[in-house]
Amino acid sequence: MGRTLTEKILADHLVDGDIETGEEIGIEVDQTIAHDLTGTMAWLQFEALGLDEVKVEVAGQHCDHQTYQPDFKVSDDHRFLRSAAGTYGAYFARPGTGILHQVHKENFTAPGKTLLGADSHTPTAGGVGSLGIGTGGLDVATAMGGAPFYLDVPEVVNVRLEGELPEWTTAKDVILELLRRYSVKFGVDKVFEYTGPGVETLSAHERTVITNMGTELGATTSIFPSDERTKEFFDRLGRPEDFVELAPDPDAEYDDEIVVDLSELEPLIACPSMPDNVVPVREVSGIEVDQVLVGSCTNGAYEDILPVAKMLDGREVAKRTETIVAPASKQASEMLARDGFTAELMAAGVSVSEATCGACIGAGHVPASDSVSVRTFNRNFEGRSGMEADAVYLCSPEVAAATALAGEITDPRDLAADVEEPGFEYPERYIGASESDLIMPDEAVDDGLVKGPNIDEVPLKDPLGRDLSGPALLKMPDNITTDHIIPATQEVSVYRSNVPKLSEFTLKRVDETFAARAAAADGGVLVAGENYGQGSSREHAALCPMYLGVGAVLAQSFARIHKSNLINFGLLPLTIDEETYERIDQGDEIDIVDDAAAAVESGQETLTIRVDDDWEATVGLDANERERELLAAGGKLPHTRQRFADEAGEA
Amino acid sequence: MGRTLTEKILADHLVDGDIETGEEIGIEVDQTIAHDLTGTMAWLQFEALGLDEVKVEVAGQHCDHQTYQPDFKVSDDHRFLRSAAGTYGAYFARPGTGILHQVHKENFTAPGKTLLGADSHTPTAGGVGSLGIGTGGLDVATAMGGAPFYLDVPEVVNVRLEGELPEWTTAKDVILELLRRYSVKFGVDKVFEYTGPGVETLSAHERTVITNMGTELGATTSIFPSDERTKEFFDRLGRPEDFVELAPDPDAEYDDEIVVDLSELEPLIACPSMPDNVVPVREVSGIEVDQVLVGSCTNGAYEDILPVAKMLDGREVAKRTETIVAPASKQASEMLARDGFTAELMAAGVSVSEATCGACIGAGHVPASDSVSVRTFNRNFEGRSGMEADAVYLCSPEVAAATALAGEITDPRDLAADVEEPGFEYPERYIGASESDLIMPDEAVDDGLVKGPNIDEVPLKDPLGRDLSGPALLKMPDNITTDHIIPATQEVSVYRSNVPKLSEFTLKRVDETFAARAAAADGGVLVAGENYGQGSSREHAALCPMYLGVGAVLAQSFARIHKSNLINFGLLPLTIDEETYERIDQGDEIDIVDDAAAAVESGQETLTIRVDDDWEATVGLDANERERELLAAGGKLPHTRQRFADEAGEA
Repeated sequence: MGRTLTEKILADHLVDGDIETGEEIGIEVDQTIAHDLTGTMAWLQFEALGLDEVKVEVAGQHCDHQTYQPDFKVSDDHRFLRSAAGTYGAYFARPGTGILHQVHKENFTAPGKTLLGADSHTPTAGGVGSLGIGTGGLDVATAMGGAPFYLDVPEVVNVRLEGELPEWTTAKDVILELLRRYSVKFGVDKVFEYTGPGVETLSAHERTVITNMGTELGATTSIFPSDERTKEFFDRLGRPEDFVELAPDPDAEYDDEIVVDLSELEPLIACPSMPDNVVPVREVSGIEVDQVLVGSCTNGAYEDILPVAKMLDGREVAKRTETIVAPASKQASEMLARDGFTAELMAAGVSVSEATCGACIGAGHVPASDSVSVRTFNRNFEGRSGMEADAVYLCSPEVAAATALAGEITDPRDLAADVEEPGFEYPERYIGASESDLIMPDEAVDDGLVKGPNIDEVPLKDPLGRDLSGPALLKMPDNITTDHIIPATQEVSVYRSNVPKLSEFTLKRVDETFAARAAAADGGVLVAGENYGQGSSREHAALCPMYLGVGAVLAQSFARIHKSNLINFGLLPLTIDEETYERIDQGDEIDIVDDAAAAVESGQETLTIRVDDDWEATVGLDANERERELLAAGGKLPHTRQRFADEAGEA
Repeated sequence: MGRTLTEKILADHLVDGDIETGEEIGIEVDQTIAHDLTGTMAWLQFEALGLDEVKVEVAGQHCDHQTYQPDFKVSDDHRFLRSAAGTYGAYFARPGTGILHQVHKENFTAPGKTLLGADSHTPTAGGVGSLGIGTGGLDVATAMGGAPFYLDVPEVVNVRLEGELPEWTTAKDVILELLRRYSVKFGVDKVFEYTGPGVETLSAHERTVITNMGTELGATTSIFPSDERTKEFFDRLGRPEDFVELAPDPDAEYDDEIVVDLSELEPLIACPSMPDNVVPVREVSGIEVDQVLVGSCTNGAYEDILPVAKMLDGREVAKRTETIVAPASKQASEMLARDGFTAELMAAGVSVSEATCGACIGAGHVPASDSVSVRTFNRNFEGRSGMEADAVYLCSPEVAAATALAGEITDPRDLAADVEEPGFEYPERYIGASESDLIMPDEAVDDGLVKGPNIDEVPLKDPLGRDLSGPALLKMPDNITTDHIIPATQEVSVYRSNVPKLSEFTLKRVDETFAARAAAADGGVLVAGENYGQGSSREHAALCPMYLGVGAVLAQSFARIHKSNLINFGLLPLTIDEETYERIDQGDEIDIVDDAAAAVESGQETLTIRVDDDWEATVGLDANERERELLAAGGKLPHTRQRFADEAGEA
């Protein structure tokens, strides 16, 4: 039986387990990336691992989310990241250099490599045959230290592309079509592997647009073969030596198959406020638009902005429509400037920003209230723009440009009488990044770690002991989200590298007094209903309760990623039934009757708790062997540190 | 006896009073400008005046301080400003179009015109013979309504320029030399009129650098004659019709004379944290620099950035030194891009920002803690950068470029072996602004005022009554700036059109508890040393204390613009001697013994205060008849509204 491309790359990197769908495996990580929101904690964790340098082939640290540096704490973080990259042997991309996925793609991504990124759009790299997976910063920290990355072997879905894209229809419309059909949950625990005759009709750049936004399907990752079009791209990048040809076996067997006939697509748009709320542009054309934004890791490359510049050349954007272009890399910016397109964009009334993620995460160019924003980005979750009740649409650069010209949502085919289809075009040859912008480890400028006053130590939990007891610090209802546990607002997230300070915001949205009470209690547990910890993958939602002394969460059920984060930070995720949930009152003293450490390590699937020294109940612990080791060690960080120390001792 | 240029322009616009030094006159205003921090309140006030349209020749509304739009409230303000400009007949410069002084200079400034700006750097226009005066937004609002602008006839100081600037020495060094010699207080109630043979050695652009930063001398304004060099500038701007020749009479008599021999100057730098803390660059060379910023209304024009681009061309900035260029106008950006310089800046490792004031007021690119920032800006007041304990240096673009290359403060003459002196150069011809960026009133896009939920009503004070008493809510030292009273940082300034919320930040940098205490006290006074209210013209620094119930400020002396703002908002600016200042303790109960309303209206120049019902002191009220009318009416807004209503009633 032939193998899929995904299986081949996984097999090439396998260090633990067997490649069987749904089973956990450990793989070797070749490359890592992090950005300025995830990187600070990742490097503090790396520091705590006690290693001298990163062990992966390429580790990258980017400053892209907070390029505008609105606070000294952000600038301190950027300086710390520079010093950490230099100290431990990662490259450092300065603020203004661009978005991690674009900068990494231009300079380091290579077919066949595994790439672990502390950002959900890491699958961008799949467009050139690299297996890119997004995860939490702690996984990236341990991977940089040489530890395997563990994941459940995903299903592999064959996305068979047929035909060729019609005029005015782009790679963005391919992924919007998949979202239209299959929704944002369809891809969970799946890899989308693109095959079929349509593949060769797409340039490597266009493929990265599709794999980037495959994240919105919920996918583990997405991947294209590495072929002649990929070779062409690496030649243009000036890195022909990084190209290798890669393809699935002709008789590869897939878990599922999807067919997309490219020739049947048309310009699509995701309406507020989900990326899968997709309709043909013409269904919503005519809606007045206040803001058009071109950029992001999805559509911020030279190849994405060029069509916009061509469409606007000699024209002016509508007066009611503020139009901003934020290139995804300074390399893209420089090429656009050198080719004269930046001047034409400006003449058309466009503001050209520094290269940044910026507006995509609400850091800058936040829409006005009751206004409509049309963006070439990948997400339009309500409030993500920085405006709570926003109305954000997602589309291709061509649709965005047509919309900017008309001042209302516009299918570019309806301007075709006046505006020529710009088509796809590469730059003649990519310009390399300035050595000041992309600082290689051997050129590092710092002697050691530089920490501003807001950058604190990373907390470490002690190994699990015999006794685990404490009060039920907070009793919560169903569906508590990670936004309840630790919000991602600007006010809060400036403290992302200061756990003691950040912890003060823990569960504040549920109970203002929680953090102070937890800190005073010297240990305790949380009690929750169903689906505790749904939402984002942010690790701080486990780390901060851990810092405050929470030892276990008793919930009727857990959201998958958050449960994994609880384990990574050494908090026991214990399931309780509805009756137990109802009987426990906030403030009750909870005592695990068993020897906690022994129960966890021995694989015990149920434990007994005694409540207020009055009654007992059974709680469940669903964790595999590796997870139990982490729990026993006090979490992944102390566990990995011990492992590295043992390895160093043996060597 | 011959007349100075200042007298000529004042005489041409005189509508009230006689031109005698120190006497108050009213002048007709030809042009007005406001920006996004001052404009929202100005337009709300204009709305409160009940008029249909602006009465001045040119009114301009710019969006330059908060170009990055970090909050929907900012974007709402920008939209409100667009709607107000359109509704009432002003031009509107969109966010990203650039800094008001630069955009206005490129498009509207004209010799002989009076220009009133709701920004302290309005004297920029004096470089081309326009009388530009910075004031509060309320003055601009009433001026837009056709009311005269009142000012005390300033002393006119003849700044006689001789010789010619040596290589590497620039217009910035001329104004830094004046600051070095004369300090930030010297210019109060003075106009600096530049004469002498050195004048013709300076291009019109270089003159605007000097007049711009004359503000830091405390000057009412600064002005150059309009001559052949001015004509050359207007020809290049494509506005030859706006040029008129203007000069003082040969036998003009001045109140004072200063001589500057340009040929004796060298590159200078203002050290932290005052613009007059000036030394030769070589005295501080070698200090490691973390950040270099080029831009601002002082040095952000094409002519300022060009030398930087030339010096960096083919080189790279130091890896430890983040270098950002923020052009002062998109026209400048576009010309730089068109001429290829933007690409070279990027290749050198520079981040090129949207055109913005941005970092100058701490809105973006805030320095890291314990770091050094070298800027081509005009102010380095402590904390203005957004970082409390900052270390900001001010210098010319040439010094900034040399510093960026070396990574430490560097006199460019010390690089002269490797780097050619770029010299001064104009663009071949100025490019006009896009019609989408600079929206003229007849092209307005809004039907009426568009107000977001953060845009609140403008507060109105009651007429002054018989009793004025209350506790000394806060006792402050000398040189309290408007940045202390109401910072212009992002966190604060998003509330500029929401006075109740904004007031919570009043004097927070001096005393965290002030706003809450003031609001609770139901009336009170402020006590300060010398030069209270120096810095920007922001009227919120008077409006917010007024909203909190402050009835009077007792200070040893007042900065001119702020004193005028206090009167405009109905707060008594009372002078006290040093002994009284020393004796008053914070918390003392201050009671004006006189009938306050009667004393103010009758022209009483001294009043008696009783402190803690224990001792008495005499305080001064230096206010003319018009100002006393305003104080009695509760401020200029209720007063002017009544006047316009009366005039409409009569008509």
